[in-house]
Amino acid sequence: MTVQTIQAAYYRGDKSFAVEPAQAQPPAAGEVAVRIAFCGICGTDMHVYHGNMDARVGLNRIVGHEMSGVVDAVGQGVEGFAPGQKVVVRPLDHCGDCPACDAGHAHICHNLKFLGLDTDGAMQEIWTVPAHVLHALPDDMRLDHAALIEPAAVACHDVALAQVGEGDDVLVIGGGPIGVLVAMVARAAGGTVTVSEVNPNRLAILDKLGLATLNPREVDLAAEVTGRTGGKGADVVFEVSGTQAGVDAMTTVAATRARIVMVAIHATKPQIDLFQFFWRELKLLGARVYTPADYDKAIELVASGAVDADTIITDVSPLADIQAAFEALDASPTALKSLIKVGDIA
Amino acid sequence: MTVQTIQAAYYRGDKSFAVEPAQAQPPAAGEVAVRIAFCGICGTDMHVYHGNMDARVGLNRIVGHEMSGVVDAVGQGVEGFAPGQKVVVRPLDHCGDCPACDAGHAHICHNLKFLGLDTDGAMQEIWTVPAHVLHALPDDMRLDHAALIEPAAVACHDVALAQVGEGDDVLVIGGGPIGVLVAMVARAAGGTVTVSEVNPNRLAILDKLGLATLNPREVDLAAEVTGRTGGKGADVVFEVSGTQAGVDAMTTVAATRARIVMVAIHATKPQIDLFQFFWRELKLLGARVYTPADYDKAIELVASGAVDADTIITDVSPLADIQAAFEALDASPTALKSLIKVGDIA
Repeated sequence: MTVQTIQAAYYRGDKSFAVEPAQAQPPAAGEVAVRIAFCGICGTDMHVYHGNMDARVGLNRIVGHEMSGVVDAVGQGVEGFAPGQKVVVRPLDHCGDCPACDAGHAHICHNLKFLGLDTDGAMQEIWTVPAHVLHALPDDMRLDHAALIEPAAVACHDVALAQVGEGDDVLVIGGGPIGVLVAMVARAAGGTVTVSEVNPNRLAILDKLGLATLNPREVDLAAEVTGRTGGKGADVVFEVSGTQAGVDAMTTVAATRARIVMVAIHATKPQIDLFQFFWRELKLLGARVYTPADYDKAIELVASGAVDADTIITDVSPLADIQAAFEALDASPTALKSLIKVGDIA
Repeated sequence: MTVQTIQAAYYRGDKSFAVEPAQAQPPAAGEVAVRIAFCGICGTDMHVYHGNMDARVGLNRIVGHEMSGVVDAVGQGVEGFAPGQKVVVRPLDHCGDCPACDAGHAHICHNLKFLGLDTDGAMQEIWTVPAHVLHALPDDMRLDHAALIEPAAVACHDVALAQVGEGDDVLVIGGGPIGVLVAMVARAAGGTVTVSEVNPNRLAILDKLGLATLNPREVDLAAEVTGRTGGKGADVVFEVSGTQAGVDAMTTVAATRARIVMVAIHATKPQIDLFQFFWRELKLLGARVYTPADYDKAIELVASGAVDADTIITDVSPLADIQAAFEALDASPTALKSLIKVGDIA
């Protein structure tokens, strides 16, 4: 097999990326080489950019995991995939031999490797991964849209854990990329969805997506939600803001026996109104990444348009401009989801 | 119907009770007059004693709800109960017309009246209550044991919400009266139970009950639980301590997807490690009082001896000595459950 020279973007520390030539890794047995079309910039990638994860990723890491692509080559023994097939990667590699794997929760394996953080990722023209992390896409799916499948799968996992169903009153606290996806997936599951958000640009996008909004800087969130639900409160609350204010709000808006899903990653330990957990028998559900079923659901919802990818994707930059793209997203008051066009295949 | 003169204990504020003659209330239509045998002193009664609930209970309240007794008289239209029947009261009166009642969660009705706090309670020789709050007891059940059914029903509710099953590793944080009952009910449900407790007297009672214990002042709780569970952690955690230390511990001992039941009433807002909720997809379940089914289960477990009432009941005082009983319990390092013998019928 000929060694292919590709372009790859390396995180080199201190808010800097270097785009350099590299050699594509030929697929070993059980592996698949994927030619990358698009790769979204995740909040986690922004954490890397800010230097908060240097201990984990080092200073020579190719990041990126919200990707789409086509199969370039398959290694020995790989079945079900052939060159040209459109695919996405579910970037989780589990150990198969820990209490979480034993209990059927491989997606939160005790020794989980997250591809694109613990290994090199998708900000390179050819990414070689284990075949078991691939999901095939419909032939007619747009590859820019497909780059939203990974974050949409996060939303599908959250909505599935909350068991959102027809008629549920749902409040999403925080209308960033994940909050917007959670709102759309919850709506597709039958929920009556309202999003709490303070940023005017994000509120405008939410309006465009046909989602009801509340700005807690302008209204009394708990009073509004209680009023809109006939005194009941929200059956399901997604805390996506990652703020103490969001954690405070989540218990004030909750109906009796509401399910509150902790979507945001709180690095500090916020104060929680446990009295309300007692008083209304609330449930708090921690949620992390996704299962294969969540990926299947996300592919279905992006394909059907229930997840409105065009409105969520606010800008696309070529790989050569990755440094500028991170800088712009870091400064931008308007961007929702920024994509990098990694290779020229779509 | 002859008006009966009875003795009743009135909370009069500032850690004081007055035992005085009163007139028994004859049962109206749909009501039942119960001759009280025993009434346990609940942690909530201690809060009343300390003056923390004056705004709710006032200064002329007959408290008490952990009771046993026999039917004295039935009002018009009451079926299924007759004088002489041994009974306990499930002290919850719901409105039937709020979102919680509509959703089938009448036990946490938005307008719930708790009998013995929002109305007069069982620290009187005859207590008249709506018939719908009564549960019949087996004829051969000891009435001192039966006074434990109310707190045992709390434990049954907690264990049912957590869906404790055969083989679950269970940690109970806090070995007071409710913690001990939760431990026994969880064991009866098939759990392998350990109790975390710091008080030597309570540790001795736990030993006597055959429950495994850990003293977090002497060992590293998380390391011990992880070790005892093959690296997995506790499948179910009951936080019964009501302390920040307990809240800190609950996330460190939890297995992947553990169910953490919030049994304690936290009046302040403790800090919670939400990162661990994310990382291991933990669930936090708020729990309050009990349903009729929990009462049926509690009666069954007290009757069978699975709830070892004799070991839990550490002292019994006559109603005339209620003041001394509250003072002793407030000061006592040894008492687990103190009963008041209200009437002379057992």
